[in-house]
Formats: sequence, C-alpha cells, structure tokens
Amino acid sequence: MSTINPPAHPEADPRVKAVFDDIRATRRSDFVNQLWHALAFDPALLESTWAEVKRVMATPSTLDPLTKEMVYIAVSVANACSYCVHSHTAAARAKGMSDAQHAELMTVIALAAKTNHLANALQVPVDAVFDAGR
Amino acid sequence: MSTINPPAHPEADPRVKAVFDDIRATRRSDFVNQLWHALAFDPALLESTWAEVKRVMATPSTLDPLTKEMVYIAVSVANACSYCVHSHTAAARAKGMSDAQHAELMTVIALAAKTNHLANALQVPVDAVFDAGR
Amino acid sequence: MSTINPPAHPEADPRVKAVFDDIRATRRSDFVNQLWHALAFDPALLESTWAEVKRVMATPSTLDPLTKEMVYIAVSVANACSYCVHSHTAAARAKGMSDAQHAELMTVIALAAKTNHLANALQVPVDAVFDAGR
Amino acid sequence: MSTINPPAHPEADPRVKAVFDDIRATRRSDFVNQLWHALAFDPALLESTWAEVKRVMATPSTLDPLTKEMVYIAVSVANACSYCVHSHTAAARAKGMSDAQHAELMTVIALAAKTNHLANALQVPVDAVFDAGR
Amino acid sequence: MSTINPPAHPEADPRVKAVFDDIRATRRSDFVNQLWHALAFDPALLESTWAEVKRVMATPSTLDPLTKEMVYIAVSVANACSYCVHSHTAAARAKGMSDAQHAELMTVIALAAKTNHLANALQVPVDAVFDAGR
Amino acid sequence: MSTINPPAHPEADPRVKAVFDDIRATRRSDFVNQLWHALAFDPALLESTWAEVKRVMATPSTLDPLTKEMVYIAVSVANACSYCVHSHTAAARAKGMSDAQHAELMTVIALAAKTNHLANALQVPVDAVFDAGR
Repeated sequence: MSTINPPAHPEADPRVKAVFDDIRATRRSDFVNQLWHALAFDPALLESTWAEVKRVMATPSTLDPLTKEMVYIAVSVANACSYCVHSHTAAARAKGMSDAQHAELMTVIALAAKTNHLANALQVPVDAVFDAGR
Repeated sequence: MSTINPPAHPEADPRVKAVFDDIRATRRSDFVNQLWHALAFDPALLESTWAEVKRVMATPSTLDPLTKEMVYIAVSVANACSYCVHSHTAAARAKGMSDAQHAELMTVIALAAKTNHLANALQVPVDAVFDAGR
Repeated sequence: MSTINPPAHPEADPRVKAVFDDIRATRRSDFVNQLWHALAFDPALLESTWAEVKRVMATPSTLDPLTKEMVYIAVSVANACSYCVHSHTAAARAKGMSDAQHAELMTVIALAAKTNHLANALQVPVDAVFDAGR
Repeated sequence: MSTINPPAHPEADPRVKAVFDDIRATRRSDFVNQLWHALAFDPALLESTWAEVKRVMATPSTLDPLTKEMVYIAVSVANACSYCVHSHTAAARAKGMSDAQHAELMTVIALAAKTNHLANALQVPVDAVFDAGR
Repeated sequence: MSTINPPAHPEADPRVKAVFDDIRATRRSDFVNQLWHALAFDPALLESTWAEVKRVMATPSTLDPLTKEMVYIAVSVANACSYCVHSHTAAARAKGMSDAQHAELMTVIALAAKTNHLANALQVPVDAVFDAGR
Repeated sequence: MSTINPPAHPEADPRVKAVFDDIRATRRSDFVNQLWHALAFDPALLESTWAEVKRVMATPSTLDPLTKEMVYIAVSVANACSYCVHSHTAAARAKGMSDAQHAELMTVIALAAKTNHLANALQVPVDAVFDAGR
C-alpha cells in the first residue's frame, strides 16, 4: 500500500530518468528502490531529495560512510520509520557493518532511548558546564 | 526544576558514594553531572543506569567512542531530550569531535529526519531485497 | 492483526448502530472504515471519539476542510501513525487535494522535520521576540 | 514564554469562570495551573479540554486514580512534554505515589523505551499469537 | 521481514539456550516469541535484555504486574512500536486486563497525547509549584 | 544555552553575510533570529538550510503561506521542538493567523494526536480502499 500512485513508467519522464540514472551510477547497481519510484510522482521533490541524499551520504567528508549510515539508522529507529530502518541497515551492511557492530549499534541506540526517557521523566536542569554558547 | 528532590548529601549513602566514585574514576574528573545527582534518589536505579552506561559507552568495543557518542546524540535529538543532547554533545567534543564533524553530524540527522517523514508520508512498502531474515 | 477483537456484528448494539449511521450520513457514504469497527468494542469510547472527530473535522469553521486534513496528516506523519496517514490522505484527496498540493504538503512536512531536528540538536534559546505572553 | 497571550483577567469571562470554579471544586484547591490560564484564550477549547480531563481522570472507573496518573506520565515522557511530566508527576504524588513507586515507574518507562527502540531496529514481524482480531 | 537474520537453530548456542529456558520457566509456557529469536543473533544483547525484562517485569515490586504492563503499553504506543504494543497488550490480557480496563487505558493514553500536544503548542512555562527539587 | 558557540561576528564571513542579507531582504525586517546565528558556525549548513526554507516557505506555490506555516507548526508540535513552535507560531501570526484560527489549529493537532495514539494502540490494519498505489 502507499498514499500515492507511483507512475507506471517513471523513466518516460526525462527528469525522473536523469535521477534514476544518477542513482544507478552513484550506487553502481541496477536497482532503484521503491522510495524513489514513489517520489517520482513529483519530479521536483524527487530531484531535490536525491540531490541532498547524494551530497550528504555519497560524498567524501569528515565522517566515514559507515558512521553516517549508523547515525541515519539511529534517527530512523527513534522516528519509527520502518522503511528507513530497513533501507539504511541494508546500506550499512553493504558498507561493511559486521554483526558485532550491528549489535553494538542497537545497544547504544537502546541505551540512549532509555536515558532519554529517564532524563525527560526527571526533568533535570542542564548543567551550566555543558553550555557551549557564549 | 525537576520532578524529584535530589538528596542534599547523596554521598552519605555508601551505595551512591560508590557509584559517584566510579563515575569520577572512569571519567578522570571530579565533576558528577546533575542526572546522577537526580538518580541518587533511588540507589538501585542509579546503580543499574550507571553500570549500563559504563559498560556500553566506556568499554572498548567494535565501535569507536566518538561514533558511539554521535549515535547517542542522534537518538537524543530525535527523542527531543534536551538534557541528553547537551551532555552527549559535550562528551563528543571531549572525545575529539571537531566543528566540521559536528556540522556534518547535524546534516546527517537532519536529512534522516526529512526522509523519515517523507517515507512515513508515502507509506511505501519495504523492498523485499532489504529483508535480512530467512 | 489488531490488539482487540472487533465485535462480529457491531450494529447489533444500538449505541454502535447510532454512531455508524451518523458516520454514513455525515460522509454520505456506506463505507465505515476499520478504525470505527475496532473502537466498537467499547461503545462509550466509540461515541466520544466520533463526536469529537465530527465536531472538529466535519463542522464549518475558520479553517477550511482541506487545510484541517493537511494539518491532520502532518501530525500523523510525525507521530508515525500508518493508519492515520492512510485514512487522512484519502480524506484530503476526497476534499480536493491535488497531486501538486500533496507533493508540496510533503515538502513542508519534510522541511519542518529537518529544522525541528536541527534546532533540537543546536538547543538554541528561543528569541524573546517570539514570546506572545505577557 | 508562551505562544499565546493568556487573558489578564480570565474570570471576567463567565465561561472561563465556570471552568475555573469547577477545577477548584473538583480538586478542592484554590490553585489553577498555568495550562488552564493559557487555554482560557479560547473558552470553547478550555471547556472541551477540561470536560474531558475531568471525565477521564476525576471520575471513578475501572482503573484507580494513581494508575491513570502513571499511564499519563508515561505517555508524556515519551512525547517529551515537559509541562505534562511536571504537572502529572505532582498529581501522582498528591494521589499517594511513593518515592519507591516513582523510581519503579521510571524503571518501567526506561525499559519500555529501550525495547521499543530494539524492536523498531530489528523490525521483527509480530507473532501471530498476539493477534486479538478475528 | 527483519533487519537481521535470526539463527536457524538458536538453542545450539548454550548461552541462547539458557536464556530461552529461563524465558519458558519464568512464563510457564513453551512459547518463545520472535523478539527473542531475533536478539539471539547476539547472545550478549539477548542476555542483558532478558535479564532486565525479567528483573523489572517479572519480579514482585511496589507496582503490581498489570500496572507495569499498562505503563509499558502506554510508552510503546507513544513510541509507535507495533511489535511492543502487540506483545504487551497480550501480556496485559494474560495478567487479567479486562475489555473495560483496556478501553480505559486507551482513553487515558489518548487524552495524555492530546494534552501533550496542546501544552507543546502553547509552550506554557511550568508552574513553580510543580518543582519537586530543592 | 546551546550546543555550539555561535560566531561573535557572524557577518565578518561573507558567506554568512550573504545569507543574513537575504533573510532580511526576504522578510523585509532587520531581525535575524537565533537559529540562523547558531547555524552560522558552519556556513555550508547555513546556506543549504536557508536556501531550502526560502524555496519552500517564501516562494508562491499551490499552498498559501499561512497553510504552510500551520502545517509547519503541526509537525513541530508533534516533534516537540520548542524553538520551532515559537518561531513558526510567530510567523503564522505575522501572516494573518487570528486567535480563532490558532485555537482551531490546536484543536485539530490535539485531535490528530489523540487518534494517532488510539490507532497505534488498536493496531488496526489499513483498509484496502485507502491504498492509492497500483
């Protein structure tokens, strides 16, 4: 099920085809996953979303690609996005995440969730020493 | 403000003192932040929480300490835990996170939040290829 | 699947029948969706929920019906309620939401999610000028 | 700070006065907390909100008053509502919640948050035996 | 679907078998639900998670077992954990939750969610009287 | 407090100055709110965030400006972003939102939150008729 009707032949639209081609080239794979097919119902939204994903996740930067995928998974778990947890766990594995690292990632996420709820239940004021501002 | 009244002299309780001593020894710092003072209202909760934080965050493992802090920040941001975002950003900086890495961490968190909401709005079914199960 | 067992013949209960009749009359449709069948396990909960939905969503007011549906979708996406995203996207379409408006709604939701996470990561104090209070 | 300007003399409006009087009578206290002063900017919203709070929280029912307050706190913590966590923790204490019960409530909330995140990370399919539906 | 591949013969690992045996003994049932099969991919994570669940949920304490399950459901609903809502609703029913109590639990959760969003929309400052701190 | 140290003289950096100038020109106001000062610690993040906000929120489109602000508020409330609720409520007022519309916006948000939690508690399967997909 989905809330939009993805175009039956998305690549008939040259703007969609250009994005799909770039996805395939960037990932060195023929596979274009469902999220992009769904976003193809609006080429502008597809273009801007892919451009940002490519710029942030597929461009060398100060954080290594696997760390970025693990941060992505962490946010997706907390936001309860089933699709994103699945797709980014697959991506993390493709970038070398081992079973041990996956288990540890879950351990950190679970601990953070636990103390997030404890701190929000306690409503503790933030220590002044944590202020990075002026 | 807080929802509990932290004990005025927490270390008068030997169980609390043992935890605070271990926090100071583990972090090589005299500073014990407010969350632990607040949790001291229940020594058992204090002990179990600190034991887990120490085991997960302060024990060498397959993920490096800074990566774990960044995952922790990501979950805390998504769960809107102000205290946790402050304390773990300070911890990440203490473990060497640069301004550039901090900016990039925020960029990844922001992108993940964006696509989490897009995927949850589209309600796209998960691609079969992402299933890691049997 | 569901966590309750919806009554097999909900309209055998006159309180349930009265609500279902009002749903059909209000919507000018014979269709009563699953949420109401599920809520029928407790007639009082069914009555109070429908009364509020009818009062807020199906009564002319200062916000037009489509705007209200789009706000409803926005909250449902952020709260990760799959059922609600589906049902209220269908309702918005029935009230005239075009594909272009749907794409733009998603764009605004996605941007809001992004800056929500940025602001929660930065923990910026609120500007005094935004205070509407005395 | 707040996003609305609460009326300076809310009880000059007889609809507001009637609600405030009922809050004081129901709680046997002269104190009307800030949330109601804020909601007084719209008497209809004030009336419907208080009517529901009174009906659900201040009417004898199958769940005892303290259990209802603890459930309320649990939801408020997960939704990161600082105001609600404060006000309902105060209410739970007024209804007899001991320090030990408070600590245990936090322990259950923290564990639930932890396994919520684990299950959402694992994306485990729901066991058929948990289905209460037909 | 799931993000990990659960071991085909989990109890071939003695650490997993010990946990599964303890789950069966504690619950007096032969059934071990999918979450534990999934966690078996990492015996240490399985052990620590079960130990905490057993200690918090299956040990007599100041809160009765059904109250703890209802608090667990409340957090799981707010965190949108489908698996947890299903499994803990089944657990609450096994511990005696009636249909009337279930309906009332949902009523309280729904009201809390409503006022959480109202208070977060109003951004009302917390009344000083709610501060339990020094 | 904040997690970063905003630059003391942000407009000494020409990239920051260009963004701040564009914010002032777009809003026809001399005021640049704290979020942008904070984001100025990383000019690239500042530039990309403002470019997106300007494109989505300050460019004529199929949704009117006030509707977009109300959707933005709805997401921000559900994500518990205090800063965003304040800044976008102020923006909505500047674009003409009346007290009556504000009250109604809160009423819709509160109702959506309520039914989101009900549907997530009931775990009702989505009606096939809501599927917009092929």
